[in-house]
Amino acid sequence: MDIFAKLQNIVTPLRISNDPAELYCYSSDASYIKGTPDYVVMPSTTAEVSEIVKLAQKHHIPIVARGAGTGLAGGAVPLCGGIVLDMSRMNRIIDIDIRNLQVLVEPGLIHADLNRALEPHGFFFPPDPGSSEMCTLGGLIANRGSGMRSVKYGTVTDYVLDLEVVMPDGAVIRTGGRVMKSASGYDLTALMIGSEGTLGIITGARLKIHPLPEARAAVLAHFNELEAAGRTVSAIMEKGIVPSACELMDSTTIKAVNTYDANLNIPDCEAMLLIEVDGAPCSVESGAARVAECCRELGAFDVTIAYSEPEMKELWAARRLAGAAVTRLNPGKTRVYIGEDIAVPLSAIPEMLREIRNISDRHGLNIMTYGHAGDGNLHTGMAIDTLDEEQWEVLEKTADDIHLAALRLNGTVSGEHGIGSARGMYMIKEHGGALDVMIAIKQALDPHNIMNPQKVGLE
Amino acid sequence: MDIFAKLQNIVTPLRISNDPAELYCYSSDASYIKGTPDYVVMPSTTAEVSEIVKLAQKHHIPIVARGAGTGLAGGAVPLCGGIVLDMSRMNRIIDIDIRNLQVLVEPGLIHADLNRALEPHGFFFPPDPGSSEMCTLGGLIANRGSGMRSVKYGTVTDYVLDLEVVMPDGAVIRTGGRVMKSASGYDLTALMIGSEGTLGIITGARLKIHPLPEARAAVLAHFNELEAAGRTVSAIMEKGIVPSACELMDSTTIKAVNTYDANLNIPDCEAMLLIEVDGAPCSVESGAARVAECCRELGAFDVTIAYSEPEMKELWAARRLAGAAVTRLNPGKTRVYIGEDIAVPLSAIPEMLREIRNISDRHGLNIMTYGHAGDGNLHTGMAIDTLDEEQWEVLEKTADDIHLAALRLNGTVSGEHGIGSARGMYMIKEHGGALDVMIAIKQALDPHNIMNPQKVGLE
Repeated sequence: MDIFAKLQNIVTPLRISNDPAELYCYSSDASYIKGTPDYVVMPSTTAEVSEIVKLAQKHHIPIVARGAGTGLAGGAVPLCGGIVLDMSRMNRIIDIDIRNLQVLVEPGLIHADLNRALEPHGFFFPPDPGSSEMCTLGGLIANRGSGMRSVKYGTVTDYVLDLEVVMPDGAVIRTGGRVMKSASGYDLTALMIGSEGTLGIITGARLKIHPLPEARAAVLAHFNELEAAGRTVSAIMEKGIVPSACELMDSTTIKAVNTYDANLNIPDCEAMLLIEVDGAPCSVESGAARVAECCRELGAFDVTIAYSEPEMKELWAARRLAGAAVTRLNPGKTRVYIGEDIAVPLSAIPEMLREIRNISDRHGLNIMTYGHAGDGNLHTGMAIDTLDEEQWEVLEKTADDIHLAALRLNGTVSGEHGIGSARGMYMIKEHGGALDVMIAIKQALDPHNIMNPQKVGLE
Repeated sequence: MDIFAKLQNIVTPLRISNDPAELYCYSSDASYIKGTPDYVVMPSTTAEVSEIVKLAQKHHIPIVARGAGTGLAGGAVPLCGGIVLDMSRMNRIIDIDIRNLQVLVEPGLIHADLNRALEPHGFFFPPDPGSSEMCTLGGLIANRGSGMRSVKYGTVTDYVLDLEVVMPDGAVIRTGGRVMKSASGYDLTALMIGSEGTLGIITGARLKIHPLPEARAAVLAHFNELEAAGRTVSAIMEKGIVPSACELMDSTTIKAVNTYDANLNIPDCEAMLLIEVDGAPCSVESGAARVAECCRELGAFDVTIAYSEPEMKELWAARRLAGAAVTRLNPGKTRVYIGEDIAVPLSAIPEMLREIRNISDRHGLNIMTYGHAGDGNLHTGMAIDTLDEEQWEVLEKTADDIHLAALRLNGTVSGEHGIGSARGMYMIKEHGGALDVMIAIKQALDPHNIMNPQKVGLE
């Protein structure tokens, strides 16, 4: 059977490739996971996706959808070869429907492009991944992504009204509808969100949008004790303040960021919290003051409040550099994304931070910790010489310890990046018998396991 | 096989019954659907539920969980006999964990009891069904309920972090965790929410809580044109105002409520909107003023703003009576809950209201329309002489027309009450091929179909 020829009957030859150089470009994402496809296809319509899936099903060929390849756990990497569907051509905004507080988009649309299109209307799509300028909405949905503002606005699950999905048999279904709420039938929309392409391929999404806040303010606070910063996070929440972001950077991150850009001149301290509030101007002012007071009560020094956009931009500058700065602290080394996305209950943040310190000391590996402390999601940054096998071993042990510590503290191995293949081995430990239920669903909907096999710890 | 004796080995005899008088009490909910169980059991632990489910599985006996029986679609009615599990004894609040913004509860807990327990802490559980003082949280979750405030705060799906579920084989699983967000594996929590006991039995729930708003205000507006009221709803949203409630009453409802309590003295008009805003005091004030202005722009008269609790209580009085007042307009008749829970996109509210009027005229049956216009969820109230077969026929045709009109306008047959058996026949029309996916999941997880059979249109 000549699959290539059959694919050419479905999409124009220019949008199919089996050229090794091309295939190589699709053999990795932003993680360390590798796997080369046999074919890459760029569909431009749902009908094409459906035909390709039918072909794959007929011949039991693995099929993996790919957005921008910004994933950090190997989710879009074709571990078993087969077909990669590059969804980037399906990137239209089909409808901006302000009256119904929703938009209809194709999955290949870049996240930031949606928000740029919504801004003139005074609306936005709240989930805000760090990779906003690169990642696609399909990828964000398939990985149940969120970002800095989920502490107030929730994750992507809270903003998807309906998905168009091509199922493993090629059937095209709609999982939801245009209404703002419904109690009609199983929530297939939520089931598809975070399923990482293992149950079907998202070809369209109807998303809820939210009015842009009228005002914002940011509070920057420095701490001489790491755990005090952790305690401050839940203290703010306990006071009934819901910040729109609550970001943490530990001393290692601060050091890295200062090395990256000496002009930032962040005080040499154990931790920094950056807390944003948004809403009506008057409530933002009182909210920021209460946040600042709470930080001081818990021992913060150099507490600054910024109300204007330029001032806020300055406060945010350090946080934005955190990801990029990892390698500055470790010249000649490469950041490897592994163990980088744990989340714990808010009250466990101080203990988790202490654990990470201990793990770092134990293995002698620098760990930068930063992230969305407001929802307990901590990113850890580690860099090694990737050509050195021993360093790989240390890195893997370190990541394993981080994952296990998070689970011990009733946390999760992934707050927002997904399981992919990088974290599959923790699924049984995290979910116990619930994993059997996930596997039963997978087997029922995709009996020949063609949809993104060997992912999400399902096999 | 003596199932009764076997049940007595699991729970104390006092909490099992097969007495016809007792069984009769469990043969209906708040809808017109009837079905008598063979046994009623009141478990008090998850372990007991698990043992009972194992017994039911072994002998292929249908098993139906029941909260307070306030359901409006027959969800808790045992259509195929078998065992009814009365969950009302499992009604403890196990943990109020303010630091982690969550509570752990048993499914039989009454909704209002949770909010009474949270109030001293300055927090609340936002979903607010009209049956708050009666309904259980397990029932609310199983039916994906919401209420008046979902326009701002979302539905119950947005507030469940984790469910303990007894699966059809008796296995006890946890679907989520203690973290505020997770991208780890399929969202079984959301899958169980709204599954109406057809996939498993909820024995515990970890719920997210929210700080109580500091202030509230209510705006009451009267309209001489029904559709203008409908248009006002989406106009408010378009302006970027997110009210905490947006309730509508049509002229028939106003007439009924005035008949019920003449002191209310509502102007004889085509429609009334009651819009609530909450948040920081200053933002509430400006928000209410903007809402009032928007109402006037769209033709409202007698626009009142209430800031104090007693004033607000007065404004809300009429809305609260709407449900009870139906029969006052139709002396000697009984309200039958049927076709009472449609929801449509916000922009379709005016057309849906017009459709309901036409349907009422066509069938010569009074229809009161009221409900959560802010999320497009409209409740219709109809009353008949339930002993008159002809009137039943007219009622059913009327309800059918309402459901079909909602679907034609891209709506749903249930916004918040669930499908049960009353609305099962609309599932294929509303969901198309997605219903096949739901059925495949049901068959995979409950192959002998013991879990609440003949519900949600799955067979």
